[in-house]
Amino acid sequence: MRAMYLEKSGVIVEKHVPKPVPQADEVLVKIKAVGVCGSDIEYYEHGRIGNFIVEKPLILGHEASGAVVEVGESVTSLEVGDRVTLEPGIPCRKCEFCKSGRYNLCPNVQFMATPPVDGAFREYVAHPADFAFKIPDSLSFEEAALIEPLSVGIHVARRANVQPGDRVLILGAGPIGIMCLETSLIRGALEVTVTDVIDFRLAKAEALGATEIINAKTTPTDSYAKTFDKVIQTAGTSETYAQGLALAARGGRIVQVGHPSVQHVPIDANLLITKELDMVGSYRYTNTYPEAISLINARKVHLKPLISKSFSFEEVEKALEYPKQHPDSCIKAVVRF
Amino acid sequence: MRAMYLEKSGVIVEKHVPKPVPQADEVLVKIKAVGVCGSDIEYYEHGRIGNFIVEKPLILGHEASGAVVEVGESVTSLEVGDRVTLEPGIPCRKCEFCKSGRYNLCPNVQFMATPPVDGAFREYVAHPADFAFKIPDSLSFEEAALIEPLSVGIHVARRANVQPGDRVLILGAGPIGIMCLETSLIRGALEVTVTDVIDFRLAKAEALGATEIINAKTTPTDSYAKTFDKVIQTAGTSETYAQGLALAARGGRIVQVGHPSVQHVPIDANLLITKELDMVGSYRYTNTYPEAISLINARKVHLKPLISKSFSFEEVEKALEYPKQHPDSCIKAVVRF
Amino acid sequence: MRAMYLEKSGVIVEKHVPKPVPQADEVLVKIKAVGVCGSDIEYYEHGRIGNFIVEKPLILGHEASGAVVEVGESVTSLEVGDRVTLEPGIPCRKCEFCKSGRYNLCPNVQFMATPPVDGAFREYVAHPADFAFKIPDSLSFEEAALIEPLSVGIHVARRANVQPGDRVLILGAGPIGIMCLETSLIRGALEVTVTDVIDFRLAKAEALGATEIINAKTTPTDSYAKTFDKVIQTAGTSETYAQGLALAARGGRIVQVGHPSVQHVPIDANLLITKELDMVGSYRYTNTYPEAISLINARKVHLKPLISKSFSFEEVEKALEYPKQHPDSCIKAVVRF
Amino acid sequence: MRAMYLEKSGVIVEKHVPKPVPQADEVLVKIKAVGVCGSDIEYYEHGRIGNFIVEKPLILGHEASGAVVEVGESVTSLEVGDRVTLEPGIPCRKCEFCKSGRYNLCPNVQFMATPPVDGAFREYVAHPADFAFKIPDSLSFEEAALIEPLSVGIHVARRANVQPGDRVLILGAGPIGIMCLETSLIRGALEVTVTDVIDFRLAKAEALGATEIINAKTTPTDSYAKTFDKVIQTAGTSETYAQGLALAARGGRIVQVGHPSVQHVPIDANLLITKELDMVGSYRYTNTYPEAISLINARKVHLKPLISKSFSFEEVEKALEYPKQHPDSCIKAVVRF
Repeated sequence: MRAMYLEKSGVIVEKHVPKPVPQADEVLVKIKAVGVCGSDIEYYEHGRIGNFIVEKPLILGHEASGAVVEVGESVTSLEVGDRVTLEPGIPCRKCEFCKSGRYNLCPNVQFMATPPVDGAFREYVAHPADFAFKIPDSLSFEEAALIEPLSVGIHVARRANVQPGDRVLILGAGPIGIMCLETSLIRGALEVTVTDVIDFRLAKAEALGATEIINAKTTPTDSYAKTFDKVIQTAGTSETYAQGLALAARGGRIVQVGHPSVQHVPIDANLLITKELDMVGSYRYTNTYPEAISLINARKVHLKPLISKSFSFEEVEKALEYPKQHPDSCIKAVVRF
Repeated sequence: MRAMYLEKSGVIVEKHVPKPVPQADEVLVKIKAVGVCGSDIEYYEHGRIGNFIVEKPLILGHEASGAVVEVGESVTSLEVGDRVTLEPGIPCRKCEFCKSGRYNLCPNVQFMATPPVDGAFREYVAHPADFAFKIPDSLSFEEAALIEPLSVGIHVARRANVQPGDRVLILGAGPIGIMCLETSLIRGALEVTVTDVIDFRLAKAEALGATEIINAKTTPTDSYAKTFDKVIQTAGTSETYAQGLALAARGGRIVQVGHPSVQHVPIDANLLITKELDMVGSYRYTNTYPEAISLINARKVHLKPLISKSFSFEEVEKALEYPKQHPDSCIKAVVRF
Repeated sequence: MRAMYLEKSGVIVEKHVPKPVPQADEVLVKIKAVGVCGSDIEYYEHGRIGNFIVEKPLILGHEASGAVVEVGESVTSLEVGDRVTLEPGIPCRKCEFCKSGRYNLCPNVQFMATPPVDGAFREYVAHPADFAFKIPDSLSFEEAALIEPLSVGIHVARRANVQPGDRVLILGAGPIGIMCLETSLIRGALEVTVTDVIDFRLAKAEALGATEIINAKTTPTDSYAKTFDKVIQTAGTSETYAQGLALAARGGRIVQVGHPSVQHVPIDANLLITKELDMVGSYRYTNTYPEAISLINARKVHLKPLISKSFSFEEVEKALEYPKQHPDSCIKAVVRF
Repeated sequence: MRAMYLEKSGVIVEKHVPKPVPQADEVLVKIKAVGVCGSDIEYYEHGRIGNFIVEKPLILGHEASGAVVEVGESVTSLEVGDRVTLEPGIPCRKCEFCKSGRYNLCPNVQFMATPPVDGAFREYVAHPADFAFKIPDSLSFEEAALIEPLSVGIHVARRANVQPGDRVLILGAGPIGIMCLETSLIRGALEVTVTDVIDFRLAKAEALGATEIINAKTTPTDSYAKTFDKVIQTAGTSETYAQGLALAARGGRIVQVGHPSVQHVPIDANLLITKELDMVGSYRYTNTYPEAISLINARKVHLKPLISKSFSFEEVEKALEYPKQHPDSCIKAVVRF
């Protein structure tokens, strides 16, 4: 089969490699669409993210959908021809985290496109059947690929414990910020204020239901008159970390999901204590795919507006470069097979 | 009655002022013992804590116990002669925080010895009956005064959600650190590691049940081999803030109760996200007094070992100076009336 | 002022009594609309509900809205002319339940139209300002009166912990069942199945968003193919109690809010254990009014479709009799002043 | 190897069968001790429990400990010679319950001594390594076998959410009731009242820390003066179901773990609603073994006092009959190999 390998920073090379053979509890999936994530771009550009270093050629892409073309002998949940979306992280199923329902913290997880585990920019992937989820006919493969970032947003909204009537502040209107906007609204959030420095993104947020948008470049934080029950930080700048603490209401809850751009972020810990805030991290997701598919099916979530541009399999390199080159018009690039 | 006023930084002056008259739902309490808190010392030395500034003479002291000498006409829960301990913060009972059980966040709270509200270094205090709690005969007034800092420890343990079998790390073995040690053990914590830079305090922690003590001055953090399910930070240094994030186990929970000594504390937010930690503030307490009294009565908590030195009413100034002058022998100073 | 008293079962008598005088923290409200609740009808018909017995003439009605005509001297949150809805239960603010945020369990609560506390079928009510909530101009007084039953629905949905993607079963489509339907949908419930024995009610549920309606008279329980994550029982029959246990999914949660029509309800406790269900009661509400008003204002909840018939002040008796006489056309009767 | 089979009700037959061969992720354990559970007795006497029917010869026993004698090729957590206790239920690791941390609800679980899955009354068991837990040298094999019922008690205390200062009522002082007593005390319960109809059991409860014991045969429920924050029902009679509702405090929580002796238990659902109680089932356990071993190791739990009588492998039948024959002297019978 054909596969697109990251050879070194900035260089994607197509190779021919053997088609994987599904094990007893796996399905073989013909990949149909793969979304481009910020982490793919990071690996493509710098060959590493923190301690994760690309040391040998790696297939990128972990937001994937496709069609089942073969099923392992013990698989009963899926059959050939089923259209599926893939949850990309396969945990060990045996550690304390797996057994207690927090498998996103499994230290032995095999996560697609995280070195040294190959991702989905290839024709076929063999995947455990219970991490491949059937999608309805009404859902395109491109949308199905975006269930992965939607999962991040579902997990964030759970960690934020968004409640009906909540005032929510979302710092950053990239793909994750937009997903968090959608998952906050689903839970009955009353007001969702979204900030960013790019007007195109803010307009997208508004179109998807934000009750207020703020361009942080032109509006100083001091002029935000409100405080918020829940703050979701997706931008990763020191400023947004500071804003979270300043703008959270007494007793409020802040979710950090945007990795900080600097090693150490300065925080005003007095605010954490005197307002008795909760500040929590959100990492990947657990048990989100069935909910995500249901919500899309019921038209409570919209993924199509996030797809800014499609590319062919041969254009993987272009797809990885497009989002940064077009910040004013691109939320999400998707590769179609 | 006699009352001890903080006239200006470092100067306590005794004055004679009218005895307060209890309102219908209040009791008049003859004060018998008052503990010295770090915040009292701070006001005594610098005349302010953050935005709270002593602008006119203020009576300090908010860890108080005494005897009921008069009851308001609608009080049925207490009678003359009852020995009581006082919960020092009276919330408004009407705001969203009061109505939802988080009255420690009431913006209208009247909290003893927080400017401009007078505290307990005086002969009599009129206090709402429902914030005065009967204590058993077996409990001394000095111990009863320490139910206030014990309440801080109970609230921290609740915020930490300490569970049976937990490994707990307590950073700082001052009065609050020690209280958190005791309240963690009550909840079934299996291992409680306590750090400090003063050996006397560590020895006290060990005597009260710490399973491991570490002098942070001589033992570098890197050599702590373990991670911890719950971390309680009571020391307020940038180092302890950093240690919390470094030593928390995946999925762990950190409670910040020690106010930071600098305005902005640098934190490694990547750890917060990738270990999916909860980092929460803990502020004062709510609904702790009945539990505290029960636990003492059942001999599950020990307060006597924390009382390092007693002073007379005339010696309030000395009492406020003693703890800092005797770091190697003093956990808690108490004024006896 | 004029007031409508329940003299004895089935007899309402108009009297002239002194206009109440608001205390310092109260407002005087000119009543404009009062909804008729099942409990009003019960008192009207039988003079008692369980241990609550009408022993002297009682003013019924506890779903009330009106206009502020006078404010007590210490009231700052409201002014004359404000349109308000009244939360009818005033708790003691001092007991363990009030202080911990569960004031619906306050043993000393004064609840309108629960003997011996008078209700709202009268021209004026003096009410604590913090239990009178300003409503937007866009909301009619009749709708505002229904914020009380909506509050029951909000509290039930909180007790049920309805989550996005949940399959919810609501047993009974009376006013409370309908409110629970709306509050479940707000929280992102994916499927809401509603059962009743009256087609008119089921049609109303369908119009308001139920994804499936079942007439329990014609469809045996055995033929319900699904199980449900959350079950909300509002009907109070032994059958609905049994259905809750049978139709809850493993690990599911059942909320009982419909008082049982018999003293002892038989339950299959083996199901409770082997499916490890939660079965919880829901009683009145706490801290629901601000959320309710916000949700209505944002058009996320609809109250108008529930108002089946309006009556004048003189027609209170008729209003109390109407719902039972018109089961096939009446969800809610409201008295307009 | 030798194995003891239940041939038909009341008849245990020893057979020689092949020694099992451990798979890659399994260990082979030489069984050393097996506790006798009420369910073993039930199968022995009646050949069934509810819908679980013994249709072919079955090896009973699921409270087991032993020594590792062989390890599968991929096992790294254990080695030959390790002394272990076995968690008897192996879930599928793939269903929604397994993935969300509630694997006790896994519909595909293989649970020892539940037809048709064989139990531990045999010389060797092959068991997944991650469900075999190393025990300290200080712990006897007999005690280690009792970690299974201790796990039930840990899970119940979690489901009850026992908090420091709680007043707890435990209905029934059999092995599970006693375990719940111990796990409630670990969590800081202040008062634990235990009821039963057998004085021997009550004396055992008192020796293990019950603050109050009540013989329900001689003391009518009406004379219990208190209410309780948490109620744990382990006895399974209609009376204890009724007592739970009657004696729970407002806002209290009742855990049902004792399977009812009749199909339908009558409950006063009005109490559930007006006291806004939580009544929840507790089924088996999840993630309890590491905590259990830690607590025993720290001497916070005591298992030895529960072992009333030991039997040899040849005496399995006697062991199964002993508890019912000696209600006044037997808490737990154990078979030693």
